[in-house]
Amino acid sequence: MKQKIVVALGGNALGNSPDEQLKLVKETAKPIVDLIQEGHQVILAHGNGPQVGMINLGMETASKSVAATPEMPFPECGAMSQGYIGYHLQNAIREELLNREMTMPVATVVTQVIVDKDDQAFKNPTKPIGAFYSKDEALKLQAEKGFDMVEDAGRGWRRVVPSPIPVDVAEKTTVKTLVDNGHVVITVGGGGIPVVQEGNRLIGVPAVIDKDFASGKMAEILDADYLIILTAVEQVAINYGKADEKWLSTLSIDEAEQYMNEGHFAPGSMLPKVKAAVTFAKSKPGRKALITSLERAKEGIQGKTGTVIMVQ
Amino acid sequence: MKQKIVVALGGNALGNSPDEQLKLVKETAKPIVDLIQEGHQVILAHGNGPQVGMINLGMETASKSVAATPEMPFPECGAMSQGYIGYHLQNAIREELLNREMTMPVATVVTQVIVDKDDQAFKNPTKPIGAFYSKDEALKLQAEKGFDMVEDAGRGWRRVVPSPIPVDVAEKTTVKTLVDNGHVVITVGGGGIPVVQEGNRLIGVPAVIDKDFASGKMAEILDADYLIILTAVEQVAINYGKADEKWLSTLSIDEAEQYMNEGHFAPGSMLPKVKAAVTFAKSKPGRKALITSLERAKEGIQGKTGTVIMVQ
Repeated sequence: MKQKIVVALGGNALGNSPDEQLKLVKETAKPIVDLIQEGHQVILAHGNGPQVGMINLGMETASKSVAATPEMPFPECGAMSQGYIGYHLQNAIREELLNREMTMPVATVVTQVIVDKDDQAFKNPTKPIGAFYSKDEALKLQAEKGFDMVEDAGRGWRRVVPSPIPVDVAEKTTVKTLVDNGHVVITVGGGGIPVVQEGNRLIGVPAVIDKDFASGKMAEILDADYLIILTAVEQVAINYGKADEKWLSTLSIDEAEQYMNEGHFAPGSMLPKVKAAVTFAKSKPGRKALITSLERAKEGIQGKTGTVIMVQ
Repeated sequence: MKQKIVVALGGNALGNSPDEQLKLVKETAKPIVDLIQEGHQVILAHGNGPQVGMINLGMETASKSVAATPEMPFPECGAMSQGYIGYHLQNAIREELLNREMTMPVATVVTQVIVDKDDQAFKNPTKPIGAFYSKDEALKLQAEKGFDMVEDAGRGWRRVVPSPIPVDVAEKTTVKTLVDNGHVVITVGGGGIPVVQEGNRLIGVPAVIDKDFASGKMAEILDADYLIILTAVEQVAINYGKADEKWLSTLSIDEAEQYMNEGHFAPGSMLPKVKAAVTFAKSKPGRKALITSLERAKEGIQGKTGTVIMVQ
């Protein structure tokens, strides 16, 4: 049965340099195109942690010594990363489609995700971005620019930004129009460029929206059947790495919430994925989330592997 | 009468920093939205000279001192500039539309423009990009990376890249679908990310496609009625800056070709604009090109000002 599927790809799967990314996206394209070849409608979302970090650090470094390179705010760096990643990703998918004699268009939409300016996350920035600094430099940045700076695990001081939850996608009509017309769309890159709404204006804010939450929001908006969250493992486990480790084929909402409360899933790793999966699965009867590895995505949709999260 | 219009905006009109750009796009949005309010379908193209230069220089500078920031190839910098400029431009237009109670979606499509790998331009790179170098550094880059380096008007040595003519737009179906569905689309930013086709693969090449030519190609593909090329002056002039200077309201193809041959238009300035205008006007009966200033675009379409280039 033909399904509408939002696939969330990890930013770490894209590599740390343009050369690495060009190679990795070729591998990434194959299982994605497998899904398309099965007849599914695929919308592709992706992370951008290493890439936006690289761009931010690059522009920040250059701004200190070169007058012609101004400092680049974080939302603008996110917009750049969407162009950079989308360009490679759309080409790899296009080529893989053509290799299989499929001619549907592939395109990247520069996408902004709207967050609530009263989101509690703005009072508690937690997401480290950009360069490492000495304590003196950090305190100077804090005083001069109002950045929130924290000491990061003995490696130096870093800026932290909030991670608010996604409320809406500014370019949702564009994405929907393209999906309805059979295009493969790359969207909400890096969780989307974070913006708040003030009247008719969208204003970029220094923040990182979790790409799994943004993908789930996009999947809700598009009325997708599936949200696939790709990760390094084939299934979700409880008691992960312990003697009584147990891999899960299905996970009800109640079980997922119980396991989250019991601390089975690592924050910043499996926890946000399970949370995003639960949020999507609860949003409407029949919606399913699947957590699996990139390589297993096709078999996951066929019910052969992965962890399916759904209302039971 | 409702017209389909591709508007080509100069990269210089966008400013040299994110702050400048944010301010300038607000002014840019007004005359663009004037056209939309008149009932026209508007497709927006833009240059990226200062912006891609800034990004390229920033990443290049940082790559010399910071291991985590690799060198960024020129096409990837172009993709970044599309995200960066598109993000600001789409927001400014969206806000101006909403201020006038118009709700059509606005979106930026990451756009690649296909060039011919046998284009003669590849044998004669002329377009300077990126940083200035000493002669020794320049010769080293030439030897190590195969860059073409030239001495630039006494200011130092710079890399030059070819400026091939656009053959096709990879994302044309996406742009067409959105335009047909009433979206305002920002596309072929900076003349598009330059790519050559090898079998099913698109490969980025270090080159700069003239944004007026790319806009004209996009206008041909979309079967637009008008190509508007925005510039600093309200009309095209012959004998520009001389005693017998003459501003032109219309320009036939024959006249345009004669004036080009007579050297009336400055290379790198008015000449490519007139050339792109002629190419579009000749491509199909009824197609018109208009060269005018941003502020006069609406009156230009109404026939009140600007220089109209058409088959007569």
